[in-house]
Amino acid sequence: MANNIIAVDWGGTHVRACLLDLDIGEIGTIRHEKIAYVKGDENFDNLKNILGDWLRDYQHAPLYLCGMIGSREGWVDAGYVECPSGLDEIFDAVKIIEHEGRGIYFIPGIKSLANDGLYDDVMRGEETQILGVIVRDRATQILCLPGTHSKWAIVENAKIQQFYTFMTGELYKLMSQYSILRYSIASNRPKVCDAFHLGLTEAKADIGILSRLFSLRAMDIGGKFAANDAPSYLSGLLLGSEIQGALNVMPTQSITLVGDGAQIDMYETALKFFGLNVSRPDGDTAVFIGLGAIARMNKTRGISG
Amino acid sequence: MANNIIAVDWGGTHVRACLLDLDIGEIGTIRHEKIAYVKGDENFDNLKNILGDWLRDYQHAPLYLCGMIGSREGWVDAGYVECPSGLDEIFDAVKIIEHEGRGIYFIPGIKSLANDGLYDDVMRGEETQILGVIVRDRATQILCLPGTHSKWAIVENAKIQQFYTFMTGELYKLMSQYSILRYSIASNRPKVCDAFHLGLTEAKADIGILSRLFSLRAMDIGGKFAANDAPSYLSGLLLGSEIQGALNVMPTQSITLVGDGAQIDMYETALKFFGLNVSRPDGDTAVFIGLGAIARMNKTRGISG
Repeated sequence: MANNIIAVDWGGTHVRACLLDLDIGEIGTIRHEKIAYVKGDENFDNLKNILGDWLRDYQHAPLYLCGMIGSREGWVDAGYVECPSGLDEIFDAVKIIEHEGRGIYFIPGIKSLANDGLYDDVMRGEETQILGVIVRDRATQILCLPGTHSKWAIVENAKIQQFYTFMTGELYKLMSQYSILRYSIASNRPKVCDAFHLGLTEAKADIGILSRLFSLRAMDIGGKFAANDAPSYLSGLLLGSEIQGALNVMPTQSITLVGDGAQIDMYETALKFFGLNVSRPDGDTAVFIGLGAIARMNKTRGISG
Repeated sequence: MANNIIAVDWGGTHVRACLLDLDIGEIGTIRHEKIAYVKGDENFDNLKNILGDWLRDYQHAPLYLCGMIGSREGWVDAGYVECPSGLDEIFDAVKIIEHEGRGIYFIPGIKSLANDGLYDDVMRGEETQILGVIVRDRATQILCLPGTHSKWAIVENAKIQQFYTFMTGELYKLMSQYSILRYSIASNRPKVCDAFHLGLTEAKADIGILSRLFSLRAMDIGGKFAANDAPSYLSGLLLGSEIQGALNVMPTQSITLVGDGAQIDMYETALKFFGLNVSRPDGDTAVFIGLGAIARMNKTRGISG
């Protein structure tokens, strides 16, 4: 039992946890909807509710936490390490606290600072997913991690060299729930269909996304497509705009697509629409592989705190 | 008194009205915050509240209405005429009803349909503002009308040939009120300053606005600017993205900037930043000049309904 850890990805929208035996692999996983961050150690009580019997049954298993719980609004601010960063740099910046006789480790985020002041960027949580992918495949690659705030990362020599965030998922939510476009959008979910492909095509237009978004309303008024198609069209516009923008700064033929859930299939379709070869490692477990890698390194080297 | 009309621009966010003597000019103007549209003629009661004594003092003065009140969600659906359209085409499509012994005229919107299915667009209200500008100056020009949904129009031979909508104002509102960026934005208003110019510069980046928006959070976390500067930076990003996109499809050296309010000064600064010559006709009265031109044409030709 000495080799068990509890690995937790505590993000802004949900919490995923894994009881992990470092020698054998996953013992069990838990997925939980978002929980608000509270003050300091009170977060541990929330974690008790999420993790059920794990904390009682594995009294000395260390907790490894990544994601927004390590932000300045979270439990312990683990800060950010600068690009280029890989397992070594992230490991060296892990923050540790003791709580009820157990070590709790907070993984730092990563920041990317360009010399000219442009392209400043931050990520927190995705760096551990990327570590999980790197651990399995050290080849140079460009990764796409779709989400509320999609991340694109350039990995070379097993380090994240640079990355870019796109507010794609959040824009989709804001446009479909709060903007004038909500009147044109039925409540169904986007899917791969003709309207999705039309959105991908329009996203390439030189006029840009601020204008193409409004075309949804014009096309609705003009009866160009049914309200059921509008979510797919909007999704196509936004995914296409993300991919076009990313390729402008990261020309490539191949993409490693990381994540889980239905949206990943739409991203794969969209990436192939842009002519890219797509590989899909198991995104669901990547973050736990990353946390496991940090825990193994702690076994051999120890974390200074 | 026979030459009086009441001209009303009844939009989605506010109502502006003008008591107009077609021979002499403006007698008075009223500005009123948004009023919800109700069913059919009940809108007249709302109008009575807005217009005060005008309807009683000028019992037979016809009402000329443009804007969202003539949409399918409004009072009378005046439909859309197709580009290219100028005073003649818009005049021919005006809808008329009789109410309490008075003629009420609804100005149609304009739609723009590109042959390839792309660039479908609609406007309602702005076409009358543009008519007002054209009546004063018939030279070929490109017009920019900032707003919640900014419009850019190509005018040749005194007709609107083509136009494009940008959701700039709405995006600003959504991002600053509902998105994760709201945590980085103080409640003050945007202004022309270094952060505004930085936003304009970043808007030109090939990576696109979906990514540049998130840079606001990264720069906030990195302490690159004060929270007071964030609204100006966001405004610069969005205005710059609009202008860049518009110039991609409408290369030009000169712009006619139409509108009123504080945001017009920011647009002038932004347009000049992109190297354009800017002329500013009186945007506040353009819509009333346009409605007056339609009323004068009605005097000589009559509206068929």
